[in-house]
Amino acid sequence: PPRHSGELSSTQASTRLLAYSDALLSIIATVMILPVAHTKIHPDQKLGESIQQLLLMKIAVYLMTFLIVTVAWAAHIRLFQVIELIDDVLALLNLACMMLITFLPYTFSLMASFPGVPFGIFMFSTCAIVIGLIQAVIVAYGFYHPYLLNHQIQMSENQAFYKHHILQIILRGPVLCFLAAVFSFFFIPMSYVLLGLVIFLPHITRLIIWCKNKTGGPEEEEERHRLEAFTFYLNEPLSKERVEAFSDGVYAIVATLLILDICEDNVPDSKEVKDRFHDRLIEALSEYGPNFLAYFASFVTTGLLWFVHHSLFLYITKTTRFMGLLNTFSLAFIGGLPLGYQLTSEFAEKSHNEIEAIQVSCVITFFASIFQFAIWITALFHERETLHPLARYGGKEHAFMFAKLALYPCVSLGAFFLTCLLSKFSTAIFHIMQIVVPFAFLALRILVRISLAIMKSVLSLSRRKSVVLDEEETCLSPAETLS
Amino acid sequence: PPRHSGELSSTQASTRLLAYSDALLSIIATVMILPVAHTKIHPDQKLGESIQQLLLMKIAVYLMTFLIVTVAWAAHIRLFQVIELIDDVLALLNLACMMLITFLPYTFSLMASFPGVPFGIFMFSTCAIVIGLIQAVIVAYGFYHPYLLNHQIQMSENQAFYKHHILQIILRGPVLCFLAAVFSFFFIPMSYVLLGLVIFLPHITRLIIWCKNKTGGPEEEEERHRLEAFTFYLNEPLSKERVEAFSDGVYAIVATLLILDICEDNVPDSKEVKDRFHDRLIEALSEYGPNFLAYFASFVTTGLLWFVHHSLFLYITKTTRFMGLLNTFSLAFIGGLPLGYQLTSEFAEKSHNEIEAIQVSCVITFFASIFQFAIWITALFHERETLHPLARYGGKEHAFMFAKLALYPCVSLGAFFLTCLLSKFSTAIFHIMQIVVPFAFLALRILVRISLAIMKSVLSLSRRKSVVLDEEETCLSPAETLS
Repeated sequence: PPRHSGELSSTQASTRLLAYSDALLSIIATVMILPVAHTKIHPDQKLGESIQQLLLMKIAVYLMTFLIVTVAWAAHIRLFQVIELIDDVLALLNLACMMLITFLPYTFSLMASFPGVPFGIFMFSTCAIVIGLIQAVIVAYGFYHPYLLNHQIQMSENQAFYKHHILQIILRGPVLCFLAAVFSFFFIPMSYVLLGLVIFLPHITRLIIWCKNKTGGPEEEEERHRLEAFTFYLNEPLSKERVEAFSDGVYAIVATLLILDICEDNVPDSKEVKDRFHDRLIEALSEYGPNFLAYFASFVTTGLLWFVHHSLFLYITKTTRFMGLLNTFSLAFIGGLPLGYQLTSEFAEKSHNEIEAIQVSCVITFFASIFQFAIWITALFHERETLHPLARYGGKEHAFMFAKLALYPCVSLGAFFLTCLLSKFSTAIFHIMQIVVPFAFLALRILVRISLAIMKSVLSLSRRKSVVLDEEETCLSPAETLS
Repeated sequence: PPRHSGELSSTQASTRLLAYSDALLSIIATVMILPVAHTKIHPDQKLGESIQQLLLMKIAVYLMTFLIVTVAWAAHIRLFQVIELIDDVLALLNLACMMLITFLPYTFSLMASFPGVPFGIFMFSTCAIVIGLIQAVIVAYGFYHPYLLNHQIQMSENQAFYKHHILQIILRGPVLCFLAAVFSFFFIPMSYVLLGLVIFLPHITRLIIWCKNKTGGPEEEEERHRLEAFTFYLNEPLSKERVEAFSDGVYAIVATLLILDICEDNVPDSKEVKDRFHDRLIEALSEYGPNFLAYFASFVTTGLLWFVHHSLFLYITKTTRFMGLLNTFSLAFIGGLPLGYQLTSEFAEKSHNEIEAIQVSCVITFFASIFQFAIWITALFHERETLHPLARYGGKEHAFMFAKLALYPCVSLGAFFLTCLLSKFSTAIFHIMQIVVPFAFLALRILVRISLAIMKSVLSLSRRKSVVLDEEETCLSPAETLS
């Protein structure tokens, strides 16, 4: 509902606009996996070669899209941390921005198909520059109508400084893109380097600052102090709600994209049913059995990885930039799950490729889950700022959290090694394994409780012997135990 | 973050679970438009016939999916209005539920391809029954752990009654599906009637109650009184947040599905560029010009319809069931927009089909926007309960709201009549029209302000003459002015 119901009737809270933007951005980031998954591979071709030849380019397009969209998304978060209320003009400008971001995957497809032609780079740069300009207009509009701004900035004396800083964050990418567009006409490799910079620049600057602080910290203390309140507010924590919303979008689209393929490819032709199966539909459908199994297995995997993510973020109180980066990597692999589904369902009964398809699935699942695990480890290093007391070292939920996050890396690694050891390992077994995992979650809960109870009784026994020793043990920091 | 940090460490607020469910449900509801849009139509075929022959079945699948998913979604809202906190078990049960709902489109595809074979109906019914059973387990689990329940119910003495009531709501559909499955073996038409009932039963019962109240209201007053608090809480208002989340999902997926087609179909083949265009990429791309135009036009239309929806729901304070139904109809047509895109971009230069393609687009846009308008009219009839004071009759935003909502119905009707009158009307003109509309929104704002200012000055002139007359005018109820 409108906040200032009296005078400023046309201003609105930006919650829903941001939720809609997150949904758009997460879908765009993920949807480019479809061309990858739909790549037709001849059954007689060896999968190893095909992956190298056919898929590599499309996977590159997917990853570039994913990363550039997350960069745009991070800039969008910054922007709407400064501008807290919106009106119709800002809503329309934001939609224009979204339209151009939605178009970026196409420019990547062009670049991938014609890597030697400058037009693809030129088109991408133009889009990026226009996006930057629209966002600059949004900033200018926001500072021209200060009641739209974040309260802290609204009250501040250095409004001009804040404006300068946010414009710098927003226009950094477009300027690099402009250079890339210029270089594209006479030296294309340089353009690609510049485009790579757009993606990694925020993290590189972050790393440099971090290194500087480590080596010669106290020298710059003064300047840093001046910016502290601002840096704290605008640079460090990604808004937790928006990280969750973006992740939800990715998980949701991955979970549902699969049914599309099922609906388009696995409805038998009525003529074929008449001729080959004498009108027995169930027999015709039984041919698709492996596909259904693969579908349910993929949904279960996506759903449970969402569940782990959800459990993790319940106890995270602040998302640092590095955690955000790890989350992005995790999501990029989540987006790859449809590829795993496609491979395992396509090569269900072609022995050599079958094993390789399972291995690709395992690798994707492993990286998706290990990056989730890494978020948790990173959070533990600064647990006082980033974690809820219950999940900290020694907290009631700590052990269970650890078990939850470790489950998928272990399962996928285990499956991978099984494919190497057992020659009879098949997609069917793999999918059934995937479907059984949720019961492992419930079993885990019971297991952790039992082992905790045993540990407690052991501890209470030893406590009787020496109280001091026990206290030392509980105070052990997580950094020490984990390294 | 967990609510009861002390004793009940494993319970969690359900916000994110619901947001994720909404995302899944909205994508599933909308995604079935893709098989419709991807139907290949021979360019020499007349579109009129093709629509009847090829598309009708797929459109039916799309609409059935959309409606059944919204029914499942409404039941899901009811369920999680009763159960307010969740734990891991409930989260996993809910995911299982989602998995089966995601599978429903496939059963519809089977039914549409083999309408005379009972297996499709049987499969659908099985899914629906299992969904019902899982939801019943969720209810049982919730009432077994009362701290998970809604506070009002938790405190109430009639918990058993509430449990009975919510189970009745949830199991109504599955029971009908069970009957449909039984009938499917000896009298299939009856099964389809029963499945239709599943979709419309909530609205039919609602209508019957409404009619009863109109004809012989006061007789049942006593029994109604007893249920009042409950009915008020659980039966009437759909949660506004969830209506918004679901709508956002539909708008977002529709806006982004389009780029997929562009990326898969409109990247020129590198061989063709070499042979036909002598390595001039821009020339090759200019062939796809109409597609790009169609893409941007569709995105603008989807984005602006979201914008109108967003503006409307800013001022809506309560969503009644009837408004929810109208919203569903509006969203079903929004989901049809990719079809309009596909038709207008495919028949860009084939004169006869071109006009028909534009007309289909206009019809879809018209219905999508007129149902939005209907939500507004419905809200006005009970404006004290459903609308923010600013948007009520006489409020500051009332006139502008009206203009915003009326814009798209007018534009699409206008475009439709132009296709009948002008023989030279083309898709290019139509798309440019669509792209220009946002500027109309900004112009509208100015126009409404000017006309309000004129009206005010006229009114203040007449007020000098007679104050009493003026007051009567402002008190006029919207129902009277509109009828």
